[in-house]
Amino acid sequence: MKTKAAVCFEAGKNLEIEEVDLEGPKFGEVLVEIKASGVCHTDEFTRSGGDPEGLFPVIFGHEGAGVVVDVGPGIVSLKKGDHVIPLYTPECRQCKSCLSGKTNLCTAIRSTQGQGVMPDGTSRFSLKGKKVHHYMGCSTFSNYTVLPEIALAKIRPDAPFDKVCYIGCGVTTGIGAVINTAKVEAGANVVVFGLGGIGLNVVQGARLVGANMIVGVDLNPEREALGRKFGMTHFVNPSTLGSKDLVAHLVELTDGGADYSFECVGNTKLMRQALECCHRGWGKSVIIGVAGAGQEISTRPFQLVTGRHWMGTAFGGAKGRRDVPKIVDWYMDKKIDIDSLITHVMPVEKINDAFDLMHKGESIRSVVTF
Amino acid sequence: MKTKAAVCFEAGKNLEIEEVDLEGPKFGEVLVEIKASGVCHTDEFTRSGGDPEGLFPVIFGHEGAGVVVDVGPGIVSLKKGDHVIPLYTPECRQCKSCLSGKTNLCTAIRSTQGQGVMPDGTSRFSLKGKKVHHYMGCSTFSNYTVLPEIALAKIRPDAPFDKVCYIGCGVTTGIGAVINTAKVEAGANVVVFGLGGIGLNVVQGARLVGANMIVGVDLNPEREALGRKFGMTHFVNPSTLGSKDLVAHLVELTDGGADYSFECVGNTKLMRQALECCHRGWGKSVIIGVAGAGQEISTRPFQLVTGRHWMGTAFGGAKGRRDVPKIVDWYMDKKIDIDSLITHVMPVEKINDAFDLMHKGESIRSVVTF
Repeated sequence: MKTKAAVCFEAGKNLEIEEVDLEGPKFGEVLVEIKASGVCHTDEFTRSGGDPEGLFPVIFGHEGAGVVVDVGPGIVSLKKGDHVIPLYTPECRQCKSCLSGKTNLCTAIRSTQGQGVMPDGTSRFSLKGKKVHHYMGCSTFSNYTVLPEIALAKIRPDAPFDKVCYIGCGVTTGIGAVINTAKVEAGANVVVFGLGGIGLNVVQGARLVGANMIVGVDLNPEREALGRKFGMTHFVNPSTLGSKDLVAHLVELTDGGADYSFECVGNTKLMRQALECCHRGWGKSVIIGVAGAGQEISTRPFQLVTGRHWMGTAFGGAKGRRDVPKIVDWYMDKKIDIDSLITHVMPVEKINDAFDLMHKGESIRSVVTF
Repeated sequence: MKTKAAVCFEAGKNLEIEEVDLEGPKFGEVLVEIKASGVCHTDEFTRSGGDPEGLFPVIFGHEGAGVVVDVGPGIVSLKKGDHVIPLYTPECRQCKSCLSGKTNLCTAIRSTQGQGVMPDGTSRFSLKGKKVHHYMGCSTFSNYTVLPEIALAKIRPDAPFDKVCYIGCGVTTGIGAVINTAKVEAGANVVVFGLGGIGLNVVQGARLVGANMIVGVDLNPEREALGRKFGMTHFVNPSTLGSKDLVAHLVELTDGGADYSFECVGNTKLMRQALECCHRGWGKSVIIGVAGAGQEISTRPFQLVTGRHWMGTAFGGAKGRRDVPKIVDWYMDKKIDIDSLITHVMPVEKINDAFDLMHKGESIRSVVTF
């Protein structure tokens, strides 16, 4: 079949709307009509050429929502008409990682996903007979896409696509980091570095579980109001501290240090500050942001020997098929806010505007629709 | 009163046996007759001048066992004749840290302990009218010493002093890191870097909790036999690997990486290797060794984002008054072996020989007796 898709032909180039060829689902695969997709920093990271493992030409997008339109042989958990959210972190429930009970990092299709192809080693997308790569196993910037059954979360049919698509990445990453990775408890003091699309979801995750102080750190003063709307109790703009050290200020503000801190920017210096502002004895610091290729984090080992924990999270530690439907429910029950974070909605034809808005810092999240 | 003690007058100098003056216990303090004391790398770290916070003159020693001979006013939990192990990490059960339930790093007397004095800000030790510092709140290289009640674990009276003194630091640090900090579970694969006085206790801790593979890493081939005696199942000598990367070798050996790793040397390069040999998704790496002043650990944040945890431990996460008596019981019940680790016992007059044996790598642990 033919499908409309935003294709990136080369690192650093704008996306181009094309009619690409899409093969139907093979064994264990599902054809999904994408209704809406968020545009995330990770798409931009690869588009810009910053990702050393980026492959081109490619159809980006990993934060979508849509409807099953066809299933291949062997599909048992989904049928035509089901509403779904694609999962760049699948959940096979059979591999060593899934069975460990300790991680969400399913390895069932990891190697082929990294190569931009389906589990059988081939791509379903092509243009004029030439292969176009899948991206993060999702490629939600295509109106139709094919995914393995294990990479689809079935969600309730009354949830709006142009909102819950954001649960496919940013919302789950932020809230999941609080709930699954850090396991923040009621009464804890939390510091969040970066009040963007991930950080604000960390803030509302911390509110959800009953945190005490929720301190937001951002250089952009405009983020304060939005942060407070999501549950932030204190705002720190490092540029207003003068000669005062940020870490010392945060330790003082939290009366000894954060019980939990989250780095949501991808800056290795902030990652160190996030660790070092944690409370001696038990503070846990979670890295969510993606650092540039080759960059390293450092600290004195004394920071860890005196009880701080350094950890990270991918997709908020969420098992997608199990957790994404729950988070959709929380949105529909108004336990969490997504609407305020989706600052721009546009047809997929305008997708390059979404990247421009991201660069200018004008959007929290842009969503493209089909 | 007068007491025999090994005094270090200056960084880098040998210890000298002196008759020093000791004031009796004040409010909340206890006078202890030390019967035996282990000689630990931490004593040597400060003696050598490597510790930027070292104070002189000082009476070292923090791994002792002895008998209560007098108590000051206000003492409720101890009486004359009780057998005790001094605790360089006290347990006041009242401070924010003790009450958190999340750490053993009691802060009740931290600042004065770091200044080499008792909680009232003065030293009980002097020589010819000049102050001699306490060390780590213990000073067990003195035949008599004074400690706060909160820094003494009461133990059973039938335990031999010249063995259980080692529980005051090395044994508890190693076994506690496994049980309290990493919380190793039965069936886990464990990698231990450094098979010295701490590492071998990590090995027997891992055996105690039913670990599957217990891999020891050491450059000294003579440590293999002792490691196996303590429960090590595999030995890796990095010098025999040729061009093969140690981390890659350990990941292969453990079929994907260690569930838990422990750095027991104090080498920041090994700390990185210990982290990076951990299993993707859940591997936890615990830093036990003390690195040189100013040294830093580094890694790519991707190591943490993909699920590895970096943490550390002091005194094995043990709450001394609660846990040390239990570990003494385990020794008396032959659940753990201490005798094989105490390679040398000598009178305190020969204490400089203990440091020489440590330098030559000939001892696991030397114990001095009074």
